[in-house]
Amino acid sequence: METIRTTELAGHLGERVRLHGRLHQTRRMGGVNFVLLRDGYGIVQAVVVDPIALAPIQGLGVETVIELEGRVVAEAQARGGLELHDPVLRVITPVAEALPFPINQPTLTAGLDTFLDHAPLGLRRPAKQALFRVQAGIMAAFRATLDSAGFTEIQSPKLLAAAGESGASVFPVDYFGRRAFLAQSPQFYKQIMVGVFERVYEVGPVFRAEAHHTSRHVNEYVSLDAELGFITDHTTVMTLLTRVLQGIMAHLAARYAADLALLGVRLPGVPDTIPQITFRAAQALVRQQTGEDCSGEPDLAPAHERALGTWAATTHGSDFLFVTGYPMSKRPFYTHPDPSDPTFSNSFDLLFCGTELVTGGQRLHRYPDYLAALAQADLSPEPFAGYLEAMRYGMPPHGGFAIGLERLVMQLTGVSNIREAALFPRDGERLAP
Amino acid sequence: METIRTTELAGHLGERVRLHGRLHQTRRMGGVNFVLLRDGYGIVQAVVVDPIALAPIQGLGVETVIELEGRVVAEAQARGGLELHDPVLRVITPVAEALPFPINQPTLTAGLDTFLDHAPLGLRRPAKQALFRVQAGIMAAFRATLDSAGFTEIQSPKLLAAAGESGASVFPVDYFGRRAFLAQSPQFYKQIMVGVFERVYEVGPVFRAEAHHTSRHVNEYVSLDAELGFITDHTTVMTLLTRVLQGIMAHLAARYAADLALLGVRLPGVPDTIPQITFRAAQALVRQQTGEDCSGEPDLAPAHERALGTWAATTHGSDFLFVTGYPMSKRPFYTHPDPSDPTFSNSFDLLFCGTELVTGGQRLHRYPDYLAALAQADLSPEPFAGYLEAMRYGMPPHGGFAIGLERLVMQLTGVSNIREAALFPRDGERLAP
Repeated sequence: METIRTTELAGHLGERVRLHGRLHQTRRMGGVNFVLLRDGYGIVQAVVVDPIALAPIQGLGVETVIELEGRVVAEAQARGGLELHDPVLRVITPVAEALPFPINQPTLTAGLDTFLDHAPLGLRRPAKQALFRVQAGIMAAFRATLDSAGFTEIQSPKLLAAAGESGASVFPVDYFGRRAFLAQSPQFYKQIMVGVFERVYEVGPVFRAEAHHTSRHVNEYVSLDAELGFITDHTTVMTLLTRVLQGIMAHLAARYAADLALLGVRLPGVPDTIPQITFRAAQALVRQQTGEDCSGEPDLAPAHERALGTWAATTHGSDFLFVTGYPMSKRPFYTHPDPSDPTFSNSFDLLFCGTELVTGGQRLHRYPDYLAALAQADLSPEPFAGYLEAMRYGMPPHGGFAIGLERLVMQLTGVSNIREAALFPRDGERLAP
Repeated sequence: METIRTTELAGHLGERVRLHGRLHQTRRMGGVNFVLLRDGYGIVQAVVVDPIALAPIQGLGVETVIELEGRVVAEAQARGGLELHDPVLRVITPVAEALPFPINQPTLTAGLDTFLDHAPLGLRRPAKQALFRVQAGIMAAFRATLDSAGFTEIQSPKLLAAAGESGASVFPVDYFGRRAFLAQSPQFYKQIMVGVFERVYEVGPVFRAEAHHTSRHVNEYVSLDAELGFITDHTTVMTLLTRVLQGIMAHLAARYAADLALLGVRLPGVPDTIPQITFRAAQALVRQQTGEDCSGEPDLAPAHERALGTWAATTHGSDFLFVTGYPMSKRPFYTHPDPSDPTFSNSFDLLFCGTELVTGGQRLHRYPDYLAALAQADLSPEPFAGYLEAMRYGMPPHGGFAIGLERLVMQLTGVSNIREAALFPRDGERLAP
């Protein structure tokens, strides 16, 4: 007899099959017992008419690892329209201990901290399985879209001798008695690698030593980074990002329908041309919409981003909005200025439902421009020697973007805290499990 | 006119096309000038009959970023059988400075340290492009093979509160005034996640604070990790690993033929059943082959692994050899013993051409076995609380393996130092670029 997954039941209607998984739940309804098996892919119920079939799990608790044989029968009332009859149960690994919170209920009855403290158990909840399957799908679609556009995947080092873009928010490491730092982004390496492959991407961890405790920040997260050469300006990068988001949504729609349904997620449409507004026009619009004058500010406040999101939805019917041309004063030293007004930059933020999701833009590419920008920022060129070498030996006009994976999952699924979108989140208090 | 890549020339025979890339080389042969353009994908030569066409690059050096227009013409003598006629050159980013070493020669004239010091430039060498494209192909094939076998990709944290398997070789991090450590493997997390998804994999950095300076070790590398539940024993893991290696070689053969040819790589065949030998039989064989008695040793010396590799090649015609059943004394506490002789383990090493490439095996899965194993190893259970929780609430029999990406690339391509298989290697002396 073949051992199959819960997602493969439909192909075996009328046959006896074997599954393995967990004792997810037992129910008694109308004199009949139901045993629910959960595997790594879904749930199936077995109908137990003769209670003797329950003997193997007598006295054992949920999460007991089991094998279950039964005949696949169509039943409109059952999950997925299928259930198992004449079941035979076998215990693989018994569990007798009570769980700290139930994981077979549709809503979580424990608070977030309790859930995170017991993540190895809590992540087994079907809704969490679904959320992290979607997360895996996003990574796969990000790579597939870029692979098909001629990008090469890279893996850049996370241990650095110099603190990078800004010394403020990096974790120091004791590296054989020397001081090293954890990479806060692969920015410099992906630019260097544009000099090698023209188009590169990386999916990997980044580390931010910012002490703020908010529902939108963790200290270690996964960054989806892309960078490409021979661009016209930041609009080339915006077009690429639009294609990547379209690729992600199409992949999720095609492959993760059941998970999205379980999570109650409606995927946003990504228009071929996402509406865009300049930073200055956005400020004027905010004043018009909210009555607040933010024209002196170098950045948009979260409330103003929300107002812009509402405007994009009502005026353009779009969940997405590009804001372009942020002031140079708020962007890192390698940012390319707007040639027509160098106090502003060839950069953008992408808002999703009124919240910043992606930052990107065009970078400087001429070596003398880097030397001038570092001097302007009062930074010594010495720690940037390798990075500057790439520029010294010729770089094409280039740019890129970075998407925070957990933040994308958070905004897509509507969880209220980014800690719910990381398997084992790291913050000021939390370094385990 | 369309801008195309060097790899797309064959589809445009007879047409005028535009390419962008670098001035790779200029040559004068038989009264004719040749300009070689290198892009992120390959090289093409343009034939310059009228020297006036060279005016734009007058006085500029190799690596100058250029645009090149020309008509695609078949020419048997040219690389790929194609060249460009009637070229028009335009400079995008000029390079006037001399390079520290030539990068347009088939062999590198600089030493490894010089190459690594100037990696942003050195990585532009065609042979290096090829090697790191192959590396990207290995990652893609690893994921694709496992995706198709029902695995889910995970991203586990790299910042840990506890030092993990052994306290000896981890880098300490200053985490907001607390002591944290960099993950030396995703081992515990991938096992925890088997409890969630049954089958998981991760591609990500790991950090080893071992001070030894050898040609086979770096302190940060990329680990290709897989772990799966509901196995019979370590042989289920060996079968999976065989399929993964077959998937990788098939993908490289299908998609990276030009890169492999440039690197002079002959891909090894991966038999459906890789030959295997037990640790004890391997020791007996080593005595027979070399005359050396290593029967008291708990591990195989490199010279003995090489002797076994030669034996596998001559006797079985295989570049690969599984050695199974290593002594428990040399394996980590979570290793599953051999039920028929608990001084040995349900573990394996995979030798590739006589060198260890992969380590894997079956893990303990019963909670009481973990408590006993920790006590036996004189380890307190407290730092392992999250890991143990996964075991307490039921785990199936499970196991997995880890492949060092750089080591696989090294052994496949025959480079003599693992530092040549990492973009920006990290070792006792090297933290930059």
